[in-house]
Amino acid sequence: MPDPERIAARLQDLWTIAHGPGGGAERPAYSSAEARAMLMVAGWAREAGLEPGIDAHGNLWASPRDWSGPLITSGSHVDTVPDGGRYDGALGTILGLELVHQLPGETPSGARAGLLVCAAEEAPRFGAGTVGSRLLVGSLASAELETMIDAEGISAGRAQAEYLEALAELPRVEPPLARCRAHAEVHVAQRRALRTLGIVTRVASPRRLAVRVTGRAGHAGEVSMAERRDALAAAAELILAIEAAARPEPPETVATVGTLQVSPGAVSVIPGRATMLIDMRAVTGSSLNRLDSRIRESAAAIAAARDVTVELDLIRAGEPLELDPRLAEKALRAARELGIPAATTWSGAGHDAQHLNTVIPSLLVFVPLHGGESHTPQEGAAMEEILSAAELIAAVVGV
Amino acid sequence: MPDPERIAARLQDLWTIAHGPGGGAERPAYSSAEARAMLMVAGWAREAGLEPGIDAHGNLWASPRDWSGPLITSGSHVDTVPDGGRYDGALGTILGLELVHQLPGETPSGARAGLLVCAAEEAPRFGAGTVGSRLLVGSLASAELETMIDAEGISAGRAQAEYLEALAELPRVEPPLARCRAHAEVHVAQRRALRTLGIVTRVASPRRLAVRVTGRAGHAGEVSMAERRDALAAAAELILAIEAAARPEPPETVATVGTLQVSPGAVSVIPGRATMLIDMRAVTGSSLNRLDSRIRESAAAIAAARDVTVELDLIRAGEPLELDPRLAEKALRAARELGIPAATTWSGAGHDAQHLNTVIPSLLVFVPLHGGESHTPQEGAAMEEILSAAELIAAVVGV
Repeated sequence: MPDPERIAARLQDLWTIAHGPGGGAERPAYSSAEARAMLMVAGWAREAGLEPGIDAHGNLWASPRDWSGPLITSGSHVDTVPDGGRYDGALGTILGLELVHQLPGETPSGARAGLLVCAAEEAPRFGAGTVGSRLLVGSLASAELETMIDAEGISAGRAQAEYLEALAELPRVEPPLARCRAHAEVHVAQRRALRTLGIVTRVASPRRLAVRVTGRAGHAGEVSMAERRDALAAAAELILAIEAAARPEPPETVATVGTLQVSPGAVSVIPGRATMLIDMRAVTGSSLNRLDSRIRESAAAIAAARDVTVELDLIRAGEPLELDPRLAEKALRAARELGIPAATTWSGAGHDAQHLNTVIPSLLVFVPLHGGESHTPQEGAAMEEILSAAELIAAVVGV
Repeated sequence: MPDPERIAARLQDLWTIAHGPGGGAERPAYSSAEARAMLMVAGWAREAGLEPGIDAHGNLWASPRDWSGPLITSGSHVDTVPDGGRYDGALGTILGLELVHQLPGETPSGARAGLLVCAAEEAPRFGAGTVGSRLLVGSLASAELETMIDAEGISAGRAQAEYLEALAELPRVEPPLARCRAHAEVHVAQRRALRTLGIVTRVASPRRLAVRVTGRAGHAGEVSMAERRDALAAAAELILAIEAAARPEPPETVATVGTLQVSPGAVSVIPGRATMLIDMRAVTGSSLNRLDSRIRESAAAIAAARDVTVELDLIRAGEPLELDPRLAEKALRAARELGIPAATTWSGAGHDAQHLNTVIPSLLVFVPLHGGESHTPQEGAAMEEILSAAELIAAVVGV
């Protein structure tokens, strides 16, 4: 059985490693704080009779000692967004260790439980997330790490090298992918609407456009409204058009402008350029494509009407994807049998499990979000539901 | 008569002092480059038989040797915006020296021509311009210099002290304001529409609002469009409302959002906060007040409709003002008599002459802009029109 006191104590131990200015957990991707968290988890893995090791991408693997047979893995990640929460990543990692306690021997199918904690899952530091799992499955090339630069000018490649150096005491291992039969990740939900355990069937992989609006800069006091080619005003019109483009779609379909820069950026100068990033998500390709088309049509119309140029560059070509349907169905059945309230759901956020699913059948289970918002220090979860999630994944992969 | 070769040579000498990355003139407010330019101008003043001196605010005064009677002053400024042009400030300064050559003795009214070059006129470095002239006339207190901080964290007060140190070879003088009968400033126009000399009658002093929109941050993939309180989308709606508020007004009435910051500012996070600055200008108070009211009404309506807060803080309470009408009328008559094409006009930008006018009757004359835009290295002016402006101000103040 999963141990609520051990789970709570380990959540607290990970939480105390490093804090941001807002008091949240601060363990950026490929940072020394992420490395310290990985070492802490590796210690717990040894206590559980596992042999921890690090692969070339910085992912932590832990398999039962002297076991070379099939594996079922569970785990999540231990890095966080800036000022992040207590549960995001940490919960699934700790429940991966619980699963080893829940399934101490061979399962009926002849596998044993191990741990897989993926590195550098969170996107804020390098502008792209799920780095460790994508490197592992080959959908991200190591060479690309040199082009991913953080706010201080450090490449993900250099950060990864320093992170691996900080983990030098752990043996370097080859990823035992060929021996993995299934993977399960528990994650705290990121939207408040989900009020039972969620068995994720579809994931909305973000499609992203970089937008560059070019008008003409000018003196804020000396160019009449009629003569202006204001890049920010054009960008503002596009932001509203993006919002309008998503509104007629199903509620899972969303579009966001989260960043915007204005140039020259002075109070007395009409903006000559505005750049921004659009993030579009849907759980079906048809909805995502409709959204994308409407946004492109609006951009062209605004450019023509305002005599500015609007350039759109696809910087991430995400398509909605499906997790392993067999595992999801087993989970739904197991929940019914165990009397655990659960429903199939979708994820608007990216998770390691969706990438691992391309090489290992993977299950992703959400625990309802309580307290504050996801990715904030107030993020919360209820122990009763955490224990249910642990029971549920054991019932699915332990057979 | 004004000397075109001397004017061109001096424009070139000031131009070569310091250059920015874009190849333009780079003499920031209260910088060592501005001090070098002031020393160069002081040398030219000595050649013209004047005694140069610096007042406590860093403004350069030069009066005829051994003259304690009434003065008519002319001049402009020698600091520039980053990568600025060849004419902005420099032209009016050099024509101030020409006026001394044009009026070598006492005028019929018993005054003699002197030079006044105001310090720190350009706003980019400290976020506020016409610093030297406002300190001189008392509308800016020296204590405020400590609160004006540049991008490197240097206060205007510290920069002024270093600038004064660099000018230590010049005598320190009391501003001879009580002896000043009139002041004339020639400036290159900042809008292309003006195709003759412009005799400025009204100046639109900017009224500025700091805007802070607070919504609720959230995960870009996990919050439906209907649930959002997106601060950037609200700001975008306000930017378009600001544009719409200015459109029905006369063409001199303008409103600009030149800066905008988004927080948290990540591609996958719905903006929880957006801040921006609004710059409003008009040449009549009634138009400026209508603009201001419409913007405030829109802000309140957007806040209510989107369940966000929109806070507006007045950070600069500019009111349109009038230059000396008697001097302007004299200039218009003189232009007619001399056969110089000229028309009354307005300024959307701030100038030292509007502040000096509160203590000395002041005339501001624009020379048409040729070549590139104002405040860029391409900014240009035609020598024929420059000479006409020199003739015109001599005709107005030399009687």
